[in-house]
Amino acid sequence: MSTASSLQTPSPSPSPSPSRPSSPLGLHRVIGQPGVLPQAAWRLDTDPAIAPDEVLVRVDRLNLDAASYRQLRETYAGDPDKIRSAVLEIIATRGKMQNPVTGSGGMLTGTVEEAGPQSPLGLAPGQRIATLVSLTLTPLVISDSLYRWDGRSEQVPCEGHAILFARSIAAVLPDDLPVPLSLAVLDVCGAPALTQRMVKHGSVAVIVGAAGKSGSLSAAAARQAGASRVIGVVPTETDAALLREAAGLVDEIVVADARDPVGLAAKVEAAGGPADVTVVCVDVAGCEGGAILSTAPGGTVIFFSMATSFSAAALGAEGLAADVTMLIGNGYVPGHADLALDLIRSAPSVRKLFEQRVAS
Amino acid sequence: MSTASSLQTPSPSPSPSPSRPSSPLGLHRVIGQPGVLPQAAWRLDTDPAIAPDEVLVRVDRLNLDAASYRQLRETYAGDPDKIRSAVLEIIATRGKMQNPVTGSGGMLTGTVEEAGPQSPLGLAPGQRIATLVSLTLTPLVISDSLYRWDGRSEQVPCEGHAILFARSIAAVLPDDLPVPLSLAVLDVCGAPALTQRMVKHGSVAVIVGAAGKSGSLSAAAARQAGASRVIGVVPTETDAALLREAAGLVDEIVVADARDPVGLAAKVEAAGGPADVTVVCVDVAGCEGGAILSTAPGGTVIFFSMATSFSAAALGAEGLAADVTMLIGNGYVPGHADLALDLIRSAPSVRKLFEQRVAS
Repeated sequence: MSTASSLQTPSPSPSPSPSRPSSPLGLHRVIGQPGVLPQAAWRLDTDPAIAPDEVLVRVDRLNLDAASYRQLRETYAGDPDKIRSAVLEIIATRGKMQNPVTGSGGMLTGTVEEAGPQSPLGLAPGQRIATLVSLTLTPLVISDSLYRWDGRSEQVPCEGHAILFARSIAAVLPDDLPVPLSLAVLDVCGAPALTQRMVKHGSVAVIVGAAGKSGSLSAAAARQAGASRVIGVVPTETDAALLREAAGLVDEIVVADARDPVGLAAKVEAAGGPADVTVVCVDVAGCEGGAILSTAPGGTVIFFSMATSFSAAALGAEGLAADVTMLIGNGYVPGHADLALDLIRSAPSVRKLFEQRVAS
Repeated sequence: MSTASSLQTPSPSPSPSPSRPSSPLGLHRVIGQPGVLPQAAWRLDTDPAIAPDEVLVRVDRLNLDAASYRQLRETYAGDPDKIRSAVLEIIATRGKMQNPVTGSGGMLTGTVEEAGPQSPLGLAPGQRIATLVSLTLTPLVISDSLYRWDGRSEQVPCEGHAILFARSIAAVLPDDLPVPLSLAVLDVCGAPALTQRMVKHGSVAVIVGAAGKSGSLSAAAARQAGASRVIGVVPTETDAALLREAAGLVDEIVVADARDPVGLAAKVEAAGGPADVTVVCVDVAGCEGGAILSTAPGGTVIFFSMATSFSAAALGAEGLAADVTMLIGNGYVPGHADLALDLIRSAPSVRKLFEQRVAS
């Protein structure tokens, strides 16, 4: 993909039409803030008349980001009418679902209504898809007042439409897997893809949070990449039991508090560490030091937790004189959706663990 | 280096003696918080009786972290006596210079007084050194009441002692360079080392903040690593003039606001980008999107700015569907001090630019 064409600045246009230039990044959909990316913009243009490289989606469900939903629920004390009104108000005002407090969005599912002739996404009308880019940058209109949503969960059944840009990402929902399972897998599919890329044949991989959704998929990806040993770190005996049931997913199970650097590193070492690649998949603050100390000199730490502190990681590695490469987990790796869905299909133990997580 | 021995938990000891087990990480110097790393600990033991793997340093100067000094100066309205008292109080209470508000420390210079027979640092009594690990984890005692410090700068002349652990890092100050220059170079030496490791022969390197200290060294390192094109991004024409004077340091100069993703990427592209490796060396928030968008698919972004937001980088790359590897700049890379000092020696243009920065 060349970024050349991404950088065309279209003439400001409140209502894009197919004859106007469009930007793969969606710059032409930003209202009143030229040159600002759609994610950072206050308001997006939701005109259903798509540009030649856009896709129009008939939306049937939103999956609100967990942090966003929690904020709304707490602010309105769980009152379904008020939560519904707040979400409708945000979407109507901003042209996208981006919680102004948390800054986060979520994803959506729907059916392709129209694919522009120049769209590179490879989608066709009638396909059921999930978006893999955030709702924070996706033009969205809700047309049913959310009357089917009880406000009690982040799953929002709805009617409306959304726009995908040339550089948006969407996955066709597979026929052979239940939709809730596919959605849960797609939601975390960046982690196994980056894990597979970094783990070499014969590596020792440590997965912190191995019984979780992104953790279990990352463990399976490390195994598939040829890790000689996969060590799964979990916080409780309950999670350890889940991992033991998922026979073959990890070689060793370590029960440890990932926020205790010395304790974690000692247990990982006793289990066959230190790691060549450590993958942090737990959304808990303070795991940087333990991950660094559990990794061998020359090794790599991949931080997938949004609770990761940049400065704690940078200063921690320096303070420990640790020659480790530290990666910011990028949710986008080409082919990530297919890789993750294939892992679920081919590893029954991961699928079982995953289904338990989705159910709970 | 094996981490095996790092993980021995010594018996708690308020006053370590050479016969007690010591930890390369300094765990034996932590008071009252077993298993907590010295950086995270509230208080360290400053007993000058060193363990066999420790080094005792006679301290002559502290370089307070800029953020820490700024906080102190603002809190005490620039009153030298109050600032001095505050620093003395912190060091006396905590056994280390770690500003409780900013959490940051700084570095020190001094002379090796005694090197334990099992110290792996290769230091000998009489050598003048600078520590490359933070003051936040270095046991420290001040014995002269800081009477020579006027409180008007982060440079603190002093007398006292400090302890280095087996896994601490220190650099011998070279005879052929002025001490302020060496200190300034050592302060940022992680950036050029990691840049050199990531830049391949024939790569296009973009250095954001190329006229700064870490930026100019990173540009020189990219050149030395064989970059086919080094593009320096600076915020002002003044900085551009500095870069132009440093003939040969960069191939192209781009004057741009790094917080404007689309604008930055367009200018970088016009200058011969996108980058294979982008190095962010400006301590300004909001540069994540621009760095990502200025980097080619499959390329790498190294974030050296402490103003980097982990979530902005992670979500930004996902939102842009950008397949870029994003590194958290690790201040420690083996050999980083020698590499940076050699760059200053061998590149007169960098040295000149650096000396101007140190003077200002």
